Amino acid sequence: MSANLDNLRVVLVGTRNPLNMGAAARAMSNFGAQRLRVVNPYEVAFREARSAVGAAELLSNAEQFGSVAQAVKDCRLVVGTTTAGRRELRHRLLRLEAGSQAIRRRLASGPVALLFGSEKVGLSNADLSYCDWLMRIPTRAQHGSMNLGQAVAVCLYELARARKTPREKNQTPPARARELEMITQLLFGILRSSGYVKPRLVASTEENVRRMVRRMQMDASDAEVWLGMVRQIAWKLGSDHR
Amino acid sequence: MSANLDNLRVVLVGTRNPLNMGAAARAMSNFGAQRLRVVNPYEVAFREARSAVGAAELLSNAEQFGSVAQAVKDCRLVVGTTTAGRRELRHRLLRLEAGSQAIRRRLASGPVALLFGSEKVGLSNADLSYCDWLMRIPTRAQHGSMNLGQAVAVCLYELARARKTPREKNQTPPARARELEMITQLLFGILRSSGYVKPRLVASTEENVRRMVRRMQMDASDAEVWLGMVRQIAWKLGSDHR
Repeated sequence: MSANLDNLRVVLVGTRNPLNMGAAARAMSNFGAQRLRVVNPYEVAFREARSAVGAAELLSNAEQFGSVAQAVKDCRLVVGTTTAGRRELRHRLLRLEAGSQAIRRRLASGPVALLFGSEKVGLSNADLSYCDWLMRIPTRAQHGSMNLGQAVAVCLYELARARKTPREKNQTPPARARELEMITQLLFGILRSSGYVKPRLVASTEENVRRMVRRMQMDASDAEVWLGMVRQIAWKLGSDHR
Repeated sequence: MSANLDNLRVVLVGTRNPLNMGAAARAMSNFGAQRLRVVNPYEVAFREARSAVGAAELLSNAEQFGSVAQAVKDCRLVVGTTTAGRRELRHRLLRLEAGSQAIRRRLASGPVALLFGSEKVGLSNADLSYCDWLMRIPTRAQHGSMNLGQAVAVCLYELARARKTPREKNQTPPARARELEMITQLLFGILRSSGYVKPRLVASTEENVRRMVRRMQMDASDAEVWLGMVRQIAWKLGSDHR
């Protein structure tokens, strides 16, 4: 992953459900964000969440605050999250993609807070007043409201997403023409022995078989397996001597 | 949102936890995917999930199947999901971004299945053998394993994310899973009759054959020709009755 999320502070405001808190922590761990802050959580939620799969350490290091103001005090950028269902006219609203780019740029120079509201009511107007701008997850208008843990996962995925997609490393080189032709010939022989090839269409059928084998886009190791298969079938049919 | 997910089939395989099933359904609704399929779910999970916020209708319309084979039969592309923790060397592996682009192009021409494995073990090798390729969510190597509901949310976000991908000019639509499976079965029968299949390796050979056929990326008209070929060979060898 290219983006470094060390400077990101995920701030959960007024979370009620321990499962959601645990899920948020797990997603943080999945995507490489380590610093969780919780504001006025439901105490039981905070205690019970500590068992979240793979995120116990992250949760035990979580910092607890009595207000959003305290939780974002050291941050150089504060971003609130919202979904399509909610329209915030008083704030600049960026879609998740554009917002994430802006956040990534700022992460290089200092701590950035990303706020998530409670399950029921989201972020209050008072909470929002601490935000520089809002980031919108592009859900459907008809069902905008996302589960908290899922919203955190989607935002962190987008933040961590490598900008340049590395070239797909092709483990094995493509098959050589020689092997492809051997497969073609053996397969053609098999089809002949099986009565598939009409006498008048010998030439065009052979071409078709060659084309079809080529279209398979085999890599070298697949070609070896196919060659083994058609050899065996050809041997069984007695068609391996042309 | 620009991407139309009408043709997407989200397939949950062996899901145990009703909360995860509900969360998956909710994410589907958030991002505009409507068609849920479940394979051998834990019955209680399936019943209890029906109360998921905003996704009750989607869950009550969910289709239930006894096997992955049945669940993907009508699909023209079958994609398995995995996280960074798991290395699948025998399958083509695309990162979520690149994979989503490929899926979006194919959604224009027919149903596409996106498979999610169970919470504990993910997708089995047998499940994977039905997949054309795998899509990897780029989590950290140190904590790759994602919560199921969050994995679904992240994938659907990426699929739905607005971006106009140029329509692929597909002269012929890709082959359907049903035809690919018929080719697989006939070819496997042929290999058995030919003595290619070692008795101790029957199951793994069948999986390998399925994978190899899938990797051919046939379009519908190629599939028809291959089917004709293997039918004829199978008939000749007397291996067409299994």
